[in-house]
Amino acid sequence: MQRPAFADLFCNPAGSPIRELFPYLSRPGMISFAGGYPSAELFDAEGLRDAAAQALADTAANFQYGATEGAPLLREALASLSASRGIDCGPADILVTTGSQQAFDLLVRIFINAGDVVHVETPAYPAAIQALKLAGARIEAIPADQAGLQVEAAAAKLELAQAVRPKLLYTVPAFSNPCGTLLPLERREALVHLAIEHGFFIVEDDPYSDLAFTKDLPPPLFAIGERLAGRLHNPVIYLSSLSKTVAPGLRIGWMIAPQEVLRRCAIAKQTSDLCTSPLAQAIAALYLRSGRYPHAVARACTEYGRRMHAMIGALQKELPGTLTVNPAAGGLFLWAESRAQADPQQLFQAHVDHGVLYVPGTAFYPADPNPASMRLSYGTPGVEQILEGVRRMGRAFRAVGTNERMARD
Amino acid sequence: MQRPAFADLFCNPAGSPIRELFPYLSRPGMISFAGGYPSAELFDAEGLRDAAAQALADTAANFQYGATEGAPLLREALASLSASRGIDCGPADILVTTGSQQAFDLLVRIFINAGDVVHVETPAYPAAIQALKLAGARIEAIPADQAGLQVEAAAAKLELAQAVRPKLLYTVPAFSNPCGTLLPLERREALVHLAIEHGFFIVEDDPYSDLAFTKDLPPPLFAIGERLAGRLHNPVIYLSSLSKTVAPGLRIGWMIAPQEVLRRCAIAKQTSDLCTSPLAQAIAALYLRSGRYPHAVARACTEYGRRMHAMIGALQKELPGTLTVNPAAGGLFLWAESRAQADPQQLFQAHVDHGVLYVPGTAFYPADPNPASMRLSYGTPGVEQILEGVRRMGRAFRAVGTNERMARD
Repeated sequence: MQRPAFADLFCNPAGSPIRELFPYLSRPGMISFAGGYPSAELFDAEGLRDAAAQALADTAANFQYGATEGAPLLREALASLSASRGIDCGPADILVTTGSQQAFDLLVRIFINAGDVVHVETPAYPAAIQALKLAGARIEAIPADQAGLQVEAAAAKLELAQAVRPKLLYTVPAFSNPCGTLLPLERREALVHLAIEHGFFIVEDDPYSDLAFTKDLPPPLFAIGERLAGRLHNPVIYLSSLSKTVAPGLRIGWMIAPQEVLRRCAIAKQTSDLCTSPLAQAIAALYLRSGRYPHAVARACTEYGRRMHAMIGALQKELPGTLTVNPAAGGLFLWAESRAQADPQQLFQAHVDHGVLYVPGTAFYPADPNPASMRLSYGTPGVEQILEGVRRMGRAFRAVGTNERMARD
Repeated sequence: MQRPAFADLFCNPAGSPIRELFPYLSRPGMISFAGGYPSAELFDAEGLRDAAAQALADTAANFQYGATEGAPLLREALASLSASRGIDCGPADILVTTGSQQAFDLLVRIFINAGDVVHVETPAYPAAIQALKLAGARIEAIPADQAGLQVEAAAAKLELAQAVRPKLLYTVPAFSNPCGTLLPLERREALVHLAIEHGFFIVEDDPYSDLAFTKDLPPPLFAIGERLAGRLHNPVIYLSSLSKTVAPGLRIGWMIAPQEVLRRCAIAKQTSDLCTSPLAQAIAALYLRSGRYPHAVARACTEYGRRMHAMIGALQKELPGTLTVNPAAGGLFLWAESRAQADPQQLFQAHVDHGVLYVPGTAFYPADPNPASMRLSYGTPGVEQILEGVRRMGRAFRAVGTNERMARD
């Protein structure tokens, strides 16, 4: 008997659309608005090196295995950081994860059986969609507009006669990936009420809220959940990450959730990677305790704000009437919709040919994508690169437009 | 409508039996033979600190996100290390994982649907059992004896009329956890032939082979698979880790597998943690390239050998006729079976009361455990502690024996 074909052995054919862009990134001179990376120049290199030097001194502890739940020093530092965002919690409420990607993955593992319904703010972060698809979840797309998740659309879906209660609703209320939108207070309260009424958990994914270009942030869904439902019945699970604000290379994320959820996620984490690198945890904890974080993140935030404004201004100048795009109030992303009659594939290829890269919006939909949409990130390129990149976009759009007219003639 | 009870929301009630021992570990004066940890005194602290200092110099690269497949420098170093064990491979054959625990977890995710059959060498590493149970696998226990997996038992199971082809067979052929056994060449060849004939993948989990107390190691199953089936049809997937030989705190493991398996595991890894910490990868790569590894691992190995002999000698002196235990030819573990008529729970409690800890053997069986078995690790305690710990074991066994006689009287 022969070994069967892979197609027979594998159960999960999902792939990531963003990975397909990797080959283009290495082309010489390419300007990329595609990656979701923060800018390495904005890392607090000195502060991180100091923290690392301290962490390295304790070889015995920091090179050994650690507790699955996370190092006590880091859980304490993350509780303080969360408190600064309005979340009332202690170290015991925190599970340290290997990036917040792992936190979401653990939730999917403990909550989702194949066929279970999950509501997902759409357009959405592709790795969240992918984790849900790998688990066989039935994804219900809840549309987002310029103010984020349309809570009324979720409510309407739940009122349908054939409605199936979701186990989870996934949202990035502060400066969403890919849309950069900020969910206002009224929608936040309505969403929490909906979760209480219908009995599901909200997964509040919050990697970006410390990158706010405004001072008027509504409280996290988690805090609203605690206010409206009490500590024991809070329907919100909070996820965050140091990847956008300190450094992704540490791979440090965290989850704040009811004790029973944390306990089960810790068990799932054991099968996943046993524990997050104790060395990386020690560096993160010592860095946060050094007191340098608020200044460093403020500096990064100012720079991202400059870049965002540069990008918006350039787009309005270079492509008036061609792209619909709204300023972001924080985070790393702009979401654009093209009003050109161009074929999306051809448009993308024209951009590549002109030396500028974006992520086609199709990557951000679990199904039925808007083919005219695109995600533009100002996280890694500097202002000069942004201006040049947008000029290239202008040329790419005009080239496609010209071709189209030529084809029609 | 109320939020349903957790029991209704969660699908996976599995827990880890070893975690239940944690509270005992912190008792003052406790000597632990329970942990599967390597000894922190045997880490090459100086070499690791040098490598870390170098890695920290490149903040931009090592604190940023990295490729999901792993950093090129580390994949190259791991290919060389694997080659030193007789595996013919290049960097492109390697997927870097967050510990080898993640590597196994990724395989389970891409191969296993609920109800799929997996053959597992038993007694087995509990986190492997746990990952399979979480995925809903049907685990068929293949017994191991003093020479490791009983390949004939696997063959017999496959010959049964109602036999279902397994997708995977999981084994630790070199110094298994928990048994410390070494699978001889004939069994290795027979096992690979079986996989070829019946069409399943062997998962060769190999964290310990560089910790050999003997020079006569048979080649890895992977190398035998390539010899017998050719590169393209090799039925062996190889997993290894730096956790036992360099430092667990780095969380660096790797997988060598056919390209299609690697590709799918990389996709699954994206949903799991996006990438392994680039900082930890850089430290590991620079450490391996420094050339210090062979000397450091030889030094650790000599010390583990001393500890193993000390433990075996002490057990034979202190508990003659009470415990059946065979010397290990490498690794960190001895597997003991008690011939005392004691209740396992009572025996464990007596050990705790006498200040010595082991892992009850029941943790290592997917089902139908041998309640008289126990895993003893000589990884963390030094020789003096081992001798004192075994004396305490003697007292614990005698106390239970006395109680039993009293109860019978």
